[in-house]
Amino acid sequence: MALTRRELVRQASALVAMGIGSSSLNALNIEDQIGESGTVAKLTSEFVARAESLKPKLNEISQPARDLVRPVPDPSAFLRWRMEHEGTIESLDSRRFKAGQSFIVDFGGHRTGYLSFSITPIGFNVDAPIRLRITFGEVPGDVAEPLHPYKGTLSEAWLPEEIITVDYLPQTVRMPRRYAFRYVKVEVIATSPSYAARFGDFQAHAVSSATASVPALSPEFSEKLRRIDEVSLATLRDCMQTVFEDGPRRDQRLWIGDLRLQALANYASFRNFELVRRCLYLLSAFPRPDGLLHADVFEKPKPTAAGDVIFDYAALFVAVLADYVKESGDKETGRELWTIGKHQLEICSRSLDEHGLLIAPKNVWIFIDWQPVLEHTASMHGVLLYSYRRALELAHELDDTRAVSAYETLISKMAAAARASFYDESQKVFVSGPKRQVSWASQAWLILAGVVDKEAGATALRQVMSDSTAVRPVTPYMYHHVVSALLACGQNQEAVELIENYWGAMVLDGADTFWEVFDPADSLLSPYRDVHINSFCHAWSCTPCYFLRTPGLLGR
Amino acid sequence: MALTRRELVRQASALVAMGIGSSSLNALNIEDQIGESGTVAKLTSEFVARAESLKPKLNEISQPARDLVRPVPDPSAFLRWRMEHEGTIESLDSRRFKAGQSFIVDFGGHRTGYLSFSITPIGFNVDAPIRLRITFGEVPGDVAEPLHPYKGTLSEAWLPEEIITVDYLPQTVRMPRRYAFRYVKVEVIATSPSYAARFGDFQAHAVSSATASVPALSPEFSEKLRRIDEVSLATLRDCMQTVFEDGPRRDQRLWIGDLRLQALANYASFRNFELVRRCLYLLSAFPRPDGLLHADVFEKPKPTAAGDVIFDYAALFVAVLADYVKESGDKETGRELWTIGKHQLEICSRSLDEHGLLIAPKNVWIFIDWQPVLEHTASMHGVLLYSYRRALELAHELDDTRAVSAYETLISKMAAAARASFYDESQKVFVSGPKRQVSWASQAWLILAGVVDKEAGATALRQVMSDSTAVRPVTPYMYHHVVSALLACGQNQEAVELIENYWGAMVLDGADTFWEVFDPADSLLSPYRDVHINSFCHAWSCTPCYFLRTPGLLGR
Repeated sequence: MALTRRELVRQASALVAMGIGSSSLNALNIEDQIGESGTVAKLTSEFVARAESLKPKLNEISQPARDLVRPVPDPSAFLRWRMEHEGTIESLDSRRFKAGQSFIVDFGGHRTGYLSFSITPIGFNVDAPIRLRITFGEVPGDVAEPLHPYKGTLSEAWLPEEIITVDYLPQTVRMPRRYAFRYVKVEVIATSPSYAARFGDFQAHAVSSATASVPALSPEFSEKLRRIDEVSLATLRDCMQTVFEDGPRRDQRLWIGDLRLQALANYASFRNFELVRRCLYLLSAFPRPDGLLHADVFEKPKPTAAGDVIFDYAALFVAVLADYVKESGDKETGRELWTIGKHQLEICSRSLDEHGLLIAPKNVWIFIDWQPVLEHTASMHGVLLYSYRRALELAHELDDTRAVSAYETLISKMAAAARASFYDESQKVFVSGPKRQVSWASQAWLILAGVVDKEAGATALRQVMSDSTAVRPVTPYMYHHVVSALLACGQNQEAVELIENYWGAMVLDGADTFWEVFDPADSLLSPYRDVHINSFCHAWSCTPCYFLRTPGLLGR
Repeated sequence: MALTRRELVRQASALVAMGIGSSSLNALNIEDQIGESGTVAKLTSEFVARAESLKPKLNEISQPARDLVRPVPDPSAFLRWRMEHEGTIESLDSRRFKAGQSFIVDFGGHRTGYLSFSITPIGFNVDAPIRLRITFGEVPGDVAEPLHPYKGTLSEAWLPEEIITVDYLPQTVRMPRRYAFRYVKVEVIATSPSYAARFGDFQAHAVSSATASVPALSPEFSEKLRRIDEVSLATLRDCMQTVFEDGPRRDQRLWIGDLRLQALANYASFRNFELVRRCLYLLSAFPRPDGLLHADVFEKPKPTAAGDVIFDYAALFVAVLADYVKESGDKETGRELWTIGKHQLEICSRSLDEHGLLIAPKNVWIFIDWQPVLEHTASMHGVLLYSYRRALELAHELDDTRAVSAYETLISKMAAAARASFYDESQKVFVSGPKRQVSWASQAWLILAGVVDKEAGATALRQVMSDSTAVRPVTPYMYHHVVSALLACGQNQEAVELIENYWGAMVLDGADTFWEVFDPADSLLSPYRDVHINSFCHAWSCTPCYFLRTPGLLGR
């Protein structure tokens, strides 16, 4: 059943009434925005069908656990704990466990996948099931610290723990849910007075749609950079499932913002173009009634619209499309989704004032970074302008001359407005908001938007990066844009140093995959008020492998 | 690989050294007891193969939940709670549940089987799994009282609760483990801030190998007796799985003692002879090295010996066999297992003194009843003598003239010894032990063993049943033998009254199936120190349907 215009309007009004599409965007004239098509539902089902036809078969690799480990509190360690070797994995064979006893196995690296292990009862009578608490750790704190009482703002159901009861021993258990883990803690809640349990055969059945082998970096790269590259590739691999997930531990979901960075890293490594194409269709399948794309979609149990809208993510959709067409050469998909990409920019640009300055709607979610004190005005203007520039590239590619012409005019106007409003000549940096906040984010986005030349950009970046009062990013997502801006200004050495200092610090702190949040000053920082709900393998942190494959990066 | 005599001796010695076969029986000359066969393993695999070929396919019946209920503390109720109607099951449709909220569904009767239900998320974003605690209740206390801290002596893993996490809503969940339940409590541990859960479609998928329909009792039976019969049949039905289980909630296991009573009830009702035969082979497949049968065997993951030996259960094996041959007419199976049955008696009778009095080994487990103060000497002598009488019947049936002659002699001798040692002429009752304890159990077993005539038996039973200082049974298992003894003495009316008073009291107290333990004076009584681990559908309490089908029971 196709939705009519009238139904779309009704639904949109209902969303506003429910406080759900909580954005002043909803106040726009929705009828205008549906455009030529009165049958969004038809597009939805076509796009979903196309996406489903592109669903990859996952590759599964089984790997045995390597060691038994014991967490030891370590105030000198960023992650608060160090893992000590407690025994070889073979030494489990000689151990017997009863109620209250526990152990931790270490797989030696991060895996997204399934866990299997064997339980052999040893004793007089196997006269009861065994009950276990199993906790999956991406980092030592997950298995070393109690997860309860949980204080986070996200669902407690994401805490990576299970209580399982296994009948009829001996038994090989394969747990049905997928987890993200390096460590697995097994606590015995109960055997019976008549038997103890011997555990063994711990296997991680890792799954991924990243199947191609990626050539290692050449020896001209330092060992440190080569390790950063490995961790970066592992991060991408473990997030590449039947969609590009933001994080395999939690959310497990396709977001425009994460997809954009993953796709870039993927072009430089595994080159799974079909997965990007699938994700573009999935995101395009569920526009809001006004045509704006949701920031994310749910893939399972069947593709479904999510309720979130993020202003900067919507604008950037066209950049994902432009990257895809450029890297894959698949203009057909580009053409099919071009209207949708353009439409995002059109909706966003309704918030431009007469000078071409973005006056973002008050109640809309602008993300940019999880940095809580960040003032978004300059960054958001930069994101939109950057997106127009990428759209212009794509318009050329697809021979949309009308768009080329319109975009060229608008880009000049928006760039001039940005220079006038945000650039502080005396400080040689961009400022944002009434308090003229100086942040890394504002510099990065306005540089990427081409508001200043390379030299001025390099100066601005040098200024903020040496200014301890400037607002710094807290996520690898925002650090990505800073590195990208440095490269855009030809500051290759500084870009490499930032990768070494930021992503390299995670590696030194024990990262096997890069984290959702990393503030070197605070290992307990969480956007969700409880570090145990943070994701430690997060898509938006996977881009070093992309940067490190920039031609001529090392200038040699 | 067949076990040699030498290996059997070594294993038996190992058992003694481990304190496992903790019985002075182990001190007997084991080599003598293996008899002609040096290859127990060969018999084992043959018997297991035969048992497996008789494994029934279970019948599955799906039944929807009937009501929403709410437990209310009720000091006047034996079970401490009464269930109040909270709403129709349809009213669930309009309710939404978030973290911390819960509800209880009532299936209106006891089921052994699987649970399925649907979860529909209602809200803005289904951005996280749902985590639930599910508790299965046979009686209100299971879902009304906290199960923790658990104080029982049996494995905590039997507590009927699960924590489950369900990804990708909406979803229909079918829980993979089997439970025994009338009530199901669902507590929401977490949804997410973005959605609430609607629950529905609660179905019990009840399984049983009791498939025949059983004619109801005729109207000459009172309504009370007909209800007792229904509950009795439900108990048997829910314990009849791929073996006769002792209880579907806990243990879920084949025991000689339970099997004997279940088989009797089964002959009077569902008449599944193959299941009895399967169980006889399973029990016969795993003799101890000295040839004594274990009291129980484990069926899953594959048939395996259990470690328990119960002296009275071993003796009674031949009674199960005699009942089976008599009811089924299957003399072939009788002949095949006859040596094993006889062998149990031979081992037990090595503990007879020169007068034919049983001096039971000190460290052996004699069960008789869970009554903790019961003195077992007289009862155990009665059990062995009863078993000889049943063996004599079978010896006649199978034309084993040598056994007939030997047993007749021994039975006379043991009966005389019992009269001399246990019968108190002045009190007209049997007494047991140095303190001359008077118990219901001693009377019942020595009457069933034919030690006194009907008149003396009736007098003895009348005496103890009117003597408040006499030690009473605490289990339906022992009450069964009292009823049986009353019938043996022609006391039909008293037998029916005892059924009405004991099993009828459980019905009045809310039993849908009969309980493992029932002391009308103490609803918290547990042989395992925590009532929440008691079984409320227990095989050995299912025999009213057998007694109530005794020809001429009501004497009309």
